[in-house]
Amino acid sequence: MSNTIAAGKEEQHLHRLVLFSDAVFAIAITLLAIEIHPPEGWNGQVGSFFHLMAAKLLSYAVTFATVGVLWISHRRTFSRLHRADGLLDVLNFLMLGLVALLPLGTQLLWEVHSSGPLVLYVGLVAAIGLTQGLIWIHAAFIGRLAEPMGIGVRLFILARVSLLPGLFCGLSFLSLGTGTPWGFLAIGVIMLGLALIGRRLQPVTA
Amino acid sequence: MSNTIAAGKEEQHLHRLVLFSDAVFAIAITLLAIEIHPPEGWNGQVGSFFHLMAAKLLSYAVTFATVGVLWISHRRTFSRLHRADGLLDVLNFLMLGLVALLPLGTQLLWEVHSSGPLVLYVGLVAAIGLTQGLIWIHAAFIGRLAEPMGIGVRLFILARVSLLPGLFCGLSFLSLGTGTPWGFLAIGVIMLGLALIGRRLQPVTA
Amino acid sequence: MSNTIAAGKEEQHLHRLVLFSDAVFAIAITLLAIEIHPPEGWNGQVGSFFHLMAAKLLSYAVTFATVGVLWISHRRTFSRLHRADGLLDVLNFLMLGLVALLPLGTQLLWEVHSSGPLVLYVGLVAAIGLTQGLIWIHAAFIGRLAEPMGIGVRLFILARVSLLPGLFCGLSFLSLGTGTPWGFLAIGVIMLGLALIGRRLQPVTA
Amino acid sequence: MSNTIAAGKEEQHLHRLVLFSDAVFAIAITLLAIEIHPPEGWNGQVGSFFHLMAAKLLSYAVTFATVGVLWISHRRTFSRLHRADGLLDVLNFLMLGLVALLPLGTQLLWEVHSSGPLVLYVGLVAAIGLTQGLIWIHAAFIGRLAEPMGIGVRLFILARVSLLPGLFCGLSFLSLGTGTPWGFLAIGVIMLGLALIGRRLQPVTA
Repeated sequence: MSNTIAAGKEEQHLHRLVLFSDAVFAIAITLLAIEIHPPEGWNGQVGSFFHLMAAKLLSYAVTFATVGVLWISHRRTFSRLHRADGLLDVLNFLMLGLVALLPLGTQLLWEVHSSGPLVLYVGLVAAIGLTQGLIWIHAAFIGRLAEPMGIGVRLFILARVSLLPGLFCGLSFLSLGTGTPWGFLAIGVIMLGLALIGRRLQPVTA
Repeated sequence: MSNTIAAGKEEQHLHRLVLFSDAVFAIAITLLAIEIHPPEGWNGQVGSFFHLMAAKLLSYAVTFATVGVLWISHRRTFSRLHRADGLLDVLNFLMLGLVALLPLGTQLLWEVHSSGPLVLYVGLVAAIGLTQGLIWIHAAFIGRLAEPMGIGVRLFILARVSLLPGLFCGLSFLSLGTGTPWGFLAIGVIMLGLALIGRRLQPVTA
Repeated sequence: MSNTIAAGKEEQHLHRLVLFSDAVFAIAITLLAIEIHPPEGWNGQVGSFFHLMAAKLLSYAVTFATVGVLWISHRRTFSRLHRADGLLDVLNFLMLGLVALLPLGTQLLWEVHSSGPLVLYVGLVAAIGLTQGLIWIHAAFIGRLAEPMGIGVRLFILARVSLLPGLFCGLSFLSLGTGTPWGFLAIGVIMLGLALIGRRLQPVTA
Repeated sequence: MSNTIAAGKEEQHLHRLVLFSDAVFAIAITLLAIEIHPPEGWNGQVGSFFHLMAAKLLSYAVTFATVGVLWISHRRTFSRLHRADGLLDVLNFLMLGLVALLPLGTQLLWEVHSSGPLVLYVGLVAAIGLTQGLIWIHAAFIGRLAEPMGIGVRLFILARVSLLPGLFCGLSFLSLGTGTPWGFLAIGVIMLGLALIGRRLQPVTA
């Protein structure tokens, strides 16, 4: 019975960690939208609205998609854990501290027109991905927080979690910046490849 | 037993998706209120306060009511699902990305006085309704995420979810803009009609 | 079994409504704090900080206490419900729409120095209390959403929920404005009286 | 059976209190990040970005780490409670009211360059720790809200919860301000000592 209570506690710990993370994800993305203010000197025409706001709405869409990728990645990782510990708290906090900086990164994109903001933004997203990778390394290889699964599956999830956000974001900007479809095409190929490998490694996934 | 665990996981997935959505709905609506600042040049009289703030408080009330319609619509749709999948994540994210733009839409309403902001605002609300319709199409017709129910009920929910938000919002502005009760009257008639059809299709509803 | 599922659904409905309300309460109160900006022309001394910020910190404390009263009131009311319905959604939304205006009310207090903002602020808090009263009337007297209890208990809760927030807030300002303890004393007497009546009506309370 | 229902209610009370607290923690920390605006007069170089933003990013990191310590402290305390009461609501609200002021404290740090903001900031963090200590005193010594445990464990948790946040924060600023490692070193020694004492007092901890 003591074990049951302990298990219940660890489940609650995990549950609280997940809810806290979701709150930060949700606030970061909604605060980003609130920073988009109505265009100055707008004549009230619908067409000119989209013309004046194009850069802001595009950065908003990219950041929203990026947070979507990060959130889905986080949800899939955490759905495989059955308990939490103190180091998971710390690593997850580190990751959330970087997620909360995404609105700042997006504002840089639309205010300064040079390659610096792009580098910072893609770097930030890549760093969040790598921190999620650290979380998975701790959970699946060291801290025994994850459900039992083969080494192949664990390595596959590590690669997907660590690299996908940075790649997704970098290749999107490559396509948007050069006006060519190659970046988006590469994302499609990578996702198809991952889906195929994933299907071979684990017939049924959550 | 493996099925029980899998079912538990899918329920958790659904639960997390719902909580995340609620956080975005709640933040969007509360941020809207924070953008309403005290009126400049107010003499401190209660009467003149409502006179100076009438346009802002009215747009606030309309947006709050709209988010209410969207949230209730979302809650009713999701209460009929028994599991979630990756495409549901993506479609729901798309919907939330539009919901987060509602404060911007409302600011347009009270800052620019022409028909452009109205068109953008009603268009945004209609787009959110249509995205909720897409979610329902995926859940009830393609992805088998919903509990079993007849084709008539599913089509009825699709119509209600997709069209009600845009209609509700457009007809409200019609009444407010023309100073006539016809828009609100039409809303009443539509809701009465839907309630009657709904009662015929499904004797007990959540 | 169909009943069990329906009960589970109604419990989930209630659960989601409570979580959504909590998010709005939490955001309203935290956004209020973010509107307090560092004092201009501050010389960096700790003493002068509290001197310059006294009015803002005091309004912040009063609003935080008010939201505390409202949240506890909401929690106690909802802990007695066993299911939710559509009208509860609508009434709760109305209440949250007023809660989200509290930061604006507080800003009025510290920006305009006349009796107007005070009247608006106390009126807003009283209106939130009355809306919570409406929720309770629907839940306990009309919609049968509450657990079974005597008419005396239900009327007692109605009085406490409807009137306490406005009284608490009005009497606090009376004391702060006149620099006398009578308002706070009256709050103490009222709370003592309510506790005594409550103890007679219901030996054990949540 | 009546006991089971009562237990379920008290658990729900605790659950709602925890969720509400998490929302305030999450919003406070994410709002802090949104107050960091892109640097004015930035030339777009990555290197100069970090140079211009060093002070802001450093205060952000310290506050994020502080909230992390406070959140973990709160989670560990509340994981030992099995029910909540009205006084716990009030004390927890007091604590959250101080947490919501952390973004203001951080803004003071980066806008005014004197010892005043530092004193206010460390004082605020220490006050939050002491309020968490009050919560624990009520829960473990007076209100019987905690699970049964020895007096030694209860006193150890009290010391850790009350003093760690202020010490952690004060010693970090000591190290950052003097450019010496002694503050961080002291934190390491304190945490090591606490871990050793904790292991002796309670072989297995959540």
